[in-house]
Amino acid sequence: MSKNEQDKLLIIPLGGMGEIGKNMTVIQYGKEILLIDSGLMFPEEEMLGIDIVIPDITYLIENKEYIKGILITHGHEDHIGALPYVLQQINAPLYGTKLTLGLVEGKLKETRLNKKNISMNVVKPPTTINIGSFAVDFIRVNHSIPDAVGFAIHTPVGIICHTGDFKLDQTPVNGEKADLHKFAELGSKGVLALLSDSTNAEREGYTMSEKVVGHTIEDIFKTVTGRIIVATFASNIHRIQQIFDAAYKNDRKVAVVGRSMVNVVNIALDLGYLTIPKSLLMDLDELNRLPKEKVVIITTGSQGEPMSALTRMAMSEHKKVEIMPEDTVLISASPIPGNEKFIARTIDHLFKKGANVIYEAISGVHVSGHASQEELKLMLNLVRPKFFIPVHGEYRHLVHHSHLAMEVGIPSENIFIVENGRILEFTKDSCKMAGRVTAGKVLVDGLGVGDVGNIVLRDRKQLSQDGILIVVVAIDKETGEVVSGPDIISRGFVYVRESEELMEQAREKVKQALRKCQEENISEWSTIKSQVREHLGKLLFEQTRRRPMILPIIMEV
Amino acid sequence: MSKNEQDKLLIIPLGGMGEIGKNMTVIQYGKEILLIDSGLMFPEEEMLGIDIVIPDITYLIENKEYIKGILITHGHEDHIGALPYVLQQINAPLYGTKLTLGLVEGKLKETRLNKKNISMNVVKPPTTINIGSFAVDFIRVNHSIPDAVGFAIHTPVGIICHTGDFKLDQTPVNGEKADLHKFAELGSKGVLALLSDSTNAEREGYTMSEKVVGHTIEDIFKTVTGRIIVATFASNIHRIQQIFDAAYKNDRKVAVVGRSMVNVVNIALDLGYLTIPKSLLMDLDELNRLPKEKVVIITTGSQGEPMSALTRMAMSEHKKVEIMPEDTVLISASPIPGNEKFIARTIDHLFKKGANVIYEAISGVHVSGHASQEELKLMLNLVRPKFFIPVHGEYRHLVHHSHLAMEVGIPSENIFIVENGRILEFTKDSCKMAGRVTAGKVLVDGLGVGDVGNIVLRDRKQLSQDGILIVVVAIDKETGEVVSGPDIISRGFVYVRESEELMEQAREKVKQALRKCQEENISEWSTIKSQVREHLGKLLFEQTRRRPMILPIIMEV
Repeated sequence: MSKNEQDKLLIIPLGGMGEIGKNMTVIQYGKEILLIDSGLMFPEEEMLGIDIVIPDITYLIENKEYIKGILITHGHEDHIGALPYVLQQINAPLYGTKLTLGLVEGKLKETRLNKKNISMNVVKPPTTINIGSFAVDFIRVNHSIPDAVGFAIHTPVGIICHTGDFKLDQTPVNGEKADLHKFAELGSKGVLALLSDSTNAEREGYTMSEKVVGHTIEDIFKTVTGRIIVATFASNIHRIQQIFDAAYKNDRKVAVVGRSMVNVVNIALDLGYLTIPKSLLMDLDELNRLPKEKVVIITTGSQGEPMSALTRMAMSEHKKVEIMPEDTVLISASPIPGNEKFIARTIDHLFKKGANVIYEAISGVHVSGHASQEELKLMLNLVRPKFFIPVHGEYRHLVHHSHLAMEVGIPSENIFIVENGRILEFTKDSCKMAGRVTAGKVLVDGLGVGDVGNIVLRDRKQLSQDGILIVVVAIDKETGEVVSGPDIISRGFVYVRESEELMEQAREKVKQALRKCQEENISEWSTIKSQVREHLGKLLFEQTRRRPMILPIIMEV
Repeated sequence: MSKNEQDKLLIIPLGGMGEIGKNMTVIQYGKEILLIDSGLMFPEEEMLGIDIVIPDITYLIENKEYIKGILITHGHEDHIGALPYVLQQINAPLYGTKLTLGLVEGKLKETRLNKKNISMNVVKPPTTINIGSFAVDFIRVNHSIPDAVGFAIHTPVGIICHTGDFKLDQTPVNGEKADLHKFAELGSKGVLALLSDSTNAEREGYTMSEKVVGHTIEDIFKTVTGRIIVATFASNIHRIQQIFDAAYKNDRKVAVVGRSMVNVVNIALDLGYLTIPKSLLMDLDELNRLPKEKVVIITTGSQGEPMSALTRMAMSEHKKVEIMPEDTVLISASPIPGNEKFIARTIDHLFKKGANVIYEAISGVHVSGHASQEELKLMLNLVRPKFFIPVHGEYRHLVHHSHLAMEVGIPSENIFIVENGRILEFTKDSCKMAGRVTAGKVLVDGLGVGDVGNIVLRDRKQLSQDGILIVVVAIDKETGEVVSGPDIISRGFVYVRESEELMEQAREKVKQALRKCQEENISEWSTIKSQVREHLGKLLFEQTRRRPMILPIIMEV
């Protein structure tokens, strides 16, 4: 970084732009970098076999000595999920609220990263901390997880305000409202740029209070006589609190089922984020001995995830919970895009077992954690930023959010819809796009980080569609004569017993191709192989309209 | 079929129960069978490489001489898409309305089925036709395709009423209302059983009239100044008519783009289902020469299908249409479950090109073709059936529909939620479940019908997740010594250049396994192969946490 750039402030999103997930933003002033969030994203449909996607952090690695701190807005996977990978490459102190860092710690433990070397700094909002040339206000916001914050970063160039994921809940479950006064105060002082959550920019009106769900749950608990099973997001601790409360009021006991649910509930209990009367929480075995009308089970599986507890119950694959005709199953969640069919299938299986299933399509048992249009406009009007950068959203969400900003009076030339890796360069009164840094998706498959690329994915795609045929021939190294084969082995192509005739034709076709090569004195293996592929591929396409991968293996012996 | 069963009436669903798609119902009296619909279904996510799914028609093939006719409710794929396959196995006259049979004809032509041998009987409702012991009333209903009908089948045992897919549009685009009088008349006479469309049984209230969309489209056309591109379902001819009408009123010309859209528009024009003023419809090249404010393009791709015209436009891959900043793209459809992410991606790409995109999340540019709860209850109250069988829906839809039937007073013991293949046996005043016939899914992959089963799908699944490693060794047939290899070839596992070390370890591991077999005098190839698989699998899992398919190939030379 040259000297004359030192008086400029850069904002560089490394994730979360044009996508829901892998949120990560660089705030840079001279040789000082603050990183906001390190999230993961779940793979797209065509990323076959991939477990998770994390941001490309080449830029961070190249500038690792400048990174002064990592600020975390809240404990959701799309904000903390890449930390185990990031912290292997860079060493910087973490700053977050108590619950957020509690969840981060749990995560790092799972991945066996030695956390002793990592400085974890719990910040309780409203607090301002100083990191290098920056002063950072931690500002409470509401979200579908407790202890979520936004930031106001005071820099020598101006104030940068980042909302994090937020909604404005006027009646939050724990009474801790979003700090509207702070946002107003910042707006009065003058904010250079606002980065604000765009997830729900398409939704009109206001997002309902989490308390509404509490009332719905209570109403259901009052009328149901059999067992109650509630599936929700493990991290929605306010929701879980409300389920416990409703159970208590209706004289029921509760067991918690599902690995991530048990994990989060334990962390929340340890850190004081769940308040549960004694003896309300029980072991599942113990609970199973109570009469049905005394039972509540809180479980994972609200997205119909194939291995989750609720899905296993629905499929009669759960060891300890069998769904029965008088059960009521409450799915307190809405499907994340892409999961619609999974959750529908789980619901169908539950109905088949005779359970009564209550879910979003037919009742208000879920509210979003993200601000709708009226809240987004309110935030813009409170903060009154000079420049506006919609963040956290697919491209259309960013566009809609930019329209909202124009509606409240921000000039369109002061609104920047940017891609990951784009550099936004600020002075006290200007903002411009200034080049780009490396950014993108790194695919994680098992232990492999970035070792699955386009070629591997293309192969998996072809294999998944039409399978593979392996053609094996042994050739005498002296004479070039076939001494064994051709043998053909297929996987994922067609069930062989039903297609012996086709396989015989295929062998014949390979022999022809080999004879032709011999006749034409072709001896380069690559040519022979491509001849085999071409002849055989043509035959198979004609006969089946499929294009399996063809892998000729020629051995010289 | 034994004689004493001859006075009983059977209803046997072969598809459409517990699923959206592949609708097919058998109505049987003694040795006479009527078949209602022959639909296809699109593959579930885990059916890798499968093109379409059709019903198992073993029962029809076994009883082919009894099949007196095939009644078609309307021309959607989930009602006619299996006909090319069914008609290869059974020969029976088809009965349907003019447009429905027009679309069937187009379909059969595509699949080169010789249609000369197929008797096609156009029926114009309200008409009653006699087929064997049955009299069949064709009853007009409204749906998202013109010329849809339900049936009242008069049998010696009683009247069976089947709604087909329907809604009750009080202001249909072509003025042809659902024949409520006929349903009322049947209800007065006394109906033994009603089979009714459950697709929207979860939706409260009434489904809006198709005309509402027409008004929305007109309002949009009035205000837009640039080019207009409208994507919708090819078969929604009323929608297409309204787009043409709006174009005409606003002095724009229209071109039709996309194979299936062109195909359906041509059939509809030929048969008189579209009324278009002269010179309104233009060739795309011709249209492209007009000023932008004169242009409307109607196109396929409303589901974000990867190969569709709109998707190709969005991706800059369409030869003749390039999306430009002042374009307005109207997506007049709602996503079919499973397509949400595809359509979202298309919308994002269109926004990135600067187009204004209008779609369901932000305006009422689509209405459903299926009846909502109030219409379903109205149908039940009009027809007043003794027995009720909800059809056309996933399991939860059937359950909700059964609840609606109970609400209007049908006793729960007279409501039958049945699976495909279940036999419902009727007398004049009773209905009971009576065994089952073969039913299920037949997977179509390319030209193969039913040749891809669970083993092939399981292989494709494994290949898609972690790829394949092929281990090739040549062994001397006399001594058992390795003469060539082991060579390891991987596809879809890991990019080899980045993992040479791992491959070297893998070869070493295979050598070890082979040595061990030799030392222990193991000579059965299956044991040697499973040893190789086990040792290598363990190494790869430890090193990568992946489980690729491992295929050992041992050649004796």
